[in-house]
Amino acid sequence: MLLSEIASHLGLTLPCADTEITGVNTLAAATTSEISFLANPKYADQVATTQAAAILLAGKDAHLTPRALISEQPYVDFARCVHFFALPQGSFTGQSSQVWIHPDAHVHPDALIYPFVTIERGARIGARARIFSGVYIGENCQVGEDTCIYPNCSLMADTKIGARVLIHAGVVLGSDGFGFAPSASGIVKFPQIGHVVIEDDVEIGANTTIDRAALGQTTVGQGTKIDNLVQLGHNVQIGQHCMIVSQVGIAGSSVIGNQVILAGQVGIAGHLHVGDGCRVGAQAGVGQDIPAGKDYSGTPAMPHGTFLRTSMIMPKLPDLKRRLHRLEKELAALKEQLAQKEE
Amino acid sequence: MLLSEIASHLGLTLPCADTEITGVNTLAAATTSEISFLANPKYADQVATTQAAAILLAGKDAHLTPRALISEQPYVDFARCVHFFALPQGSFTGQSSQVWIHPDAHVHPDALIYPFVTIERGARIGARARIFSGVYIGENCQVGEDTCIYPNCSLMADTKIGARVLIHAGVVLGSDGFGFAPSASGIVKFPQIGHVVIEDDVEIGANTTIDRAALGQTTVGQGTKIDNLVQLGHNVQIGQHCMIVSQVGIAGSSVIGNQVILAGQVGIAGHLHVGDGCRVGAQAGVGQDIPAGKDYSGTPAMPHGTFLRTSMIMPKLPDLKRRLHRLEKELAALKEQLAQKEE
Amino acid sequence: MLLSEIASHLGLTLPCADTEITGVNTLAAATTSEISFLANPKYADQVATTQAAAILLAGKDAHLTPRALISEQPYVDFARCVHFFALPQGSFTGQSSQVWIHPDAHVHPDALIYPFVTIERGARIGARARIFSGVYIGENCQVGEDTCIYPNCSLMADTKIGARVLIHAGVVLGSDGFGFAPSASGIVKFPQIGHVVIEDDVEIGANTTIDRAALGQTTVGQGTKIDNLVQLGHNVQIGQHCMIVSQVGIAGSSVIGNQVILAGQVGIAGHLHVGDGCRVGAQAGVGQDIPAGKDYSGTPAMPHGTFLRTSMIMPKLPDLKRRLHRLEKELAALKEQLAQKEE
Repeated sequence: MLLSEIASHLGLTLPCADTEITGVNTLAAATTSEISFLANPKYADQVATTQAAAILLAGKDAHLTPRALISEQPYVDFARCVHFFALPQGSFTGQSSQVWIHPDAHVHPDALIYPFVTIERGARIGARARIFSGVYIGENCQVGEDTCIYPNCSLMADTKIGARVLIHAGVVLGSDGFGFAPSASGIVKFPQIGHVVIEDDVEIGANTTIDRAALGQTTVGQGTKIDNLVQLGHNVQIGQHCMIVSQVGIAGSSVIGNQVILAGQVGIAGHLHVGDGCRVGAQAGVGQDIPAGKDYSGTPAMPHGTFLRTSMIMPKLPDLKRRLHRLEKELAALKEQLAQKEE
Repeated sequence: MLLSEIASHLGLTLPCADTEITGVNTLAAATTSEISFLANPKYADQVATTQAAAILLAGKDAHLTPRALISEQPYVDFARCVHFFALPQGSFTGQSSQVWIHPDAHVHPDALIYPFVTIERGARIGARARIFSGVYIGENCQVGEDTCIYPNCSLMADTKIGARVLIHAGVVLGSDGFGFAPSASGIVKFPQIGHVVIEDDVEIGANTTIDRAALGQTTVGQGTKIDNLVQLGHNVQIGQHCMIVSQVGIAGSSVIGNQVILAGQVGIAGHLHVGDGCRVGAQAGVGQDIPAGKDYSGTPAMPHGTFLRTSMIMPKLPDLKRRLHRLEKELAALKEQLAQKEE
Repeated sequence: MLLSEIASHLGLTLPCADTEITGVNTLAAATTSEISFLANPKYADQVATTQAAAILLAGKDAHLTPRALISEQPYVDFARCVHFFALPQGSFTGQSSQVWIHPDAHVHPDALIYPFVTIERGARIGARARIFSGVYIGENCQVGEDTCIYPNCSLMADTKIGARVLIHAGVVLGSDGFGFAPSASGIVKFPQIGHVVIEDDVEIGANTTIDRAALGQTTVGQGTKIDNLVQLGHNVQIGQHCMIVSQVGIAGSSVIGNQVILAGQVGIAGHLHVGDGCRVGAQAGVGQDIPAGKDYSGTPAMPHGTFLRTSMIMPKLPDLKRRLHRLEKELAALKEQLAQKEE
């Protein structure tokens, strides 16, 4: 692909003579036919030595190289650039016969179906969907157009997935929510008869699990990105364009707004509301609602600024305790001294 | 199903004219042929407006509607009610020939075996067991009667599963425990030659992992319910009727009593004992034994009441530190003032 | 196997008459044809009553039994001993025809291939590798000699695995890293075009996920052992001979040195460096670099000694706050009293 074509796609000005670009790479590793980028100032001194054919960078850094592709958002434009060179995975084509598909399932003729796939009664697979080996698609599931489901995922009955969704390997959608009622005669299971809805343009990371609703639906909103090993409980509602980092757990019926960011290993208790645009710091334990637009961290979660100040004091607790003890002694000594003077 | 039949099954009194019930739902979503319930007072005002044919609720709330099915435990009775309308998943019947079953495995003729199932030598599958696609059942495993194993689970050799167990998709049972001995010549693996025993009526959530014992067995006791993405280490012993919420991790050889509740993301160190009836709060880090009947929370775990009081102070640490500093200054000033007077 | 053979393999002296040994067990459970060990002094009194044919123990404990196999490292030698009796799992032999293997994949004739395996174009499977049911091996993957991949693992394209690696069931290698750039026009995916490299002698626990690099590679160094449900983000570099306990999460681009131990549920933020030989305590949240050889714990992580002292004070915070309040009142009273005297 010509550098001029890339520049044109990104709406940028060609900085130098045109040349064939074969790929993308870091500043340090790029060859003379690759394009690279500078977004983190830490790497600015690599611009002088990189072999890259062109470097996406901000106007303020343009003086660093005659090969600058000046961009207002170099990282985003580099990400777009990588798309030109990223190939879809998989060498299988067509629809395998080493599958089990119920006669009343509807598989679009343009869908790609690997071997060892199971598709139950009433399921619908859209055009250009790609279903990898070992995927199980339960009764009445829907898989939208251009959606890709990587190997060994399990979609339990009634799961609805939109278009252009990417589901990484090992994901389980529509497992039973954890609904049990302790009773005098033991634990009674609340059968989970709701389902899961994944809207368009969502991405779900490897081995993540999303439970079906007890009644109604568990929802992941349009454009939301979920990382690996995340757990969403029954009836959770995730808004649009959220980013949920790995190992987050969200308990039943909690509602997450739009454009929320939950960092790694965050836990959110059940029946809570996290407002639009909130960001929650890694490992935070959220036990109360968070108003829109706020940043929270810590366990129990508190405003992020408070968390930072608190965190700095934590390792000094032994010192604070010592100082408190000394004060007590000094004050007691002072009082005694004054009392003696009185006598 | 007639409302009178439901009332009769639950041992409750029919409140109104009999009618055909087609399903169950929330107060807000129920139609005129569905049954609903009131357990959380937060939803009491929906009783007046719901279209539900009948509402399970406590005697104290009976005045809210002429269609009350009065129950001592409305939530439990509603859960029982849902069972009448919950259908088992799966449209496949019989025993697929697209499988690999060792000639010396024993599969009951009434078991359901999906395609792409592997059953190794010496394994036994009981009557009415249902084994979904992609399940691997290792050598000498046992699967009890009426047990259901959802897709893509892996049961490594010698795993014993009782009757009426439900195992959600992606579960791994009998993976090697994490047993390694550092030595002068590098890390030596301790081969894990024990196995896993899952007793009757257990439920195990999606993508949960339970390691085989180093020697002996890892056990999950009768009636215990385990959520998604839980990790049980080698030789862990879980008692009966416990509830273990998602993303809990229990390290090797720890013993959990009966009717214990571990909330989400709890971590329990190795070789500990958690007594009968304990409850451990979300994200707690347990590094010491917990006596029977106690509630613990926090990291390191402490009695729940202490945790609540401590948690309220945490965000005030910066303020406490300031107050301490001011006291020190004031006391110093006072002492100096007194010293000057002495002179 | 004769006891004399075992003693000879371990380089130890036969303590008693030779006898046939059929297995290994704990002191409490061992029969007269089994070998046992004493490493934890807690079990010393079981040495007198065990039926074991011989007991591996330290010289200082030799007086406890005439059947002592005296060892400088009884636990390590017992682990070696277990290897004599541990059998590899699996009753399938040869290469199944119920598979899908691309004609341009290279499978060594001595590799074991279970049914329902998928091997894509350009993948290479080494001699004596064992690939269990339901495993997906993507394009251009490499699996080294004597490596074992348990059921339902997914190796996405370009994953390179060395020799003698053990990968437990449900593992996902080479899933996309969580790389997204927020932009004015929504979240832009950074296509993940790097790959995963697993060096020789690594072990990876069940349902663990390791993401491919954005550019370049994610690496797990030689001899490192990883437990279940661990998450390694894109471009993470793990050194040699590390031990990473279950449910640990390491965010993108962090570098872990050699012989590092990360306890259960630890979280490590992105772009950090954890030096050689560090140990990080369970549930710690690491947000800063850790110098080589240090032990850290807590959230935010601090030196382990500080963490212990801090942890002891945590439950006493309500008491400290009360004492502080009392001091303030006493000091105020004292000042007032002095002021009145002045008048």
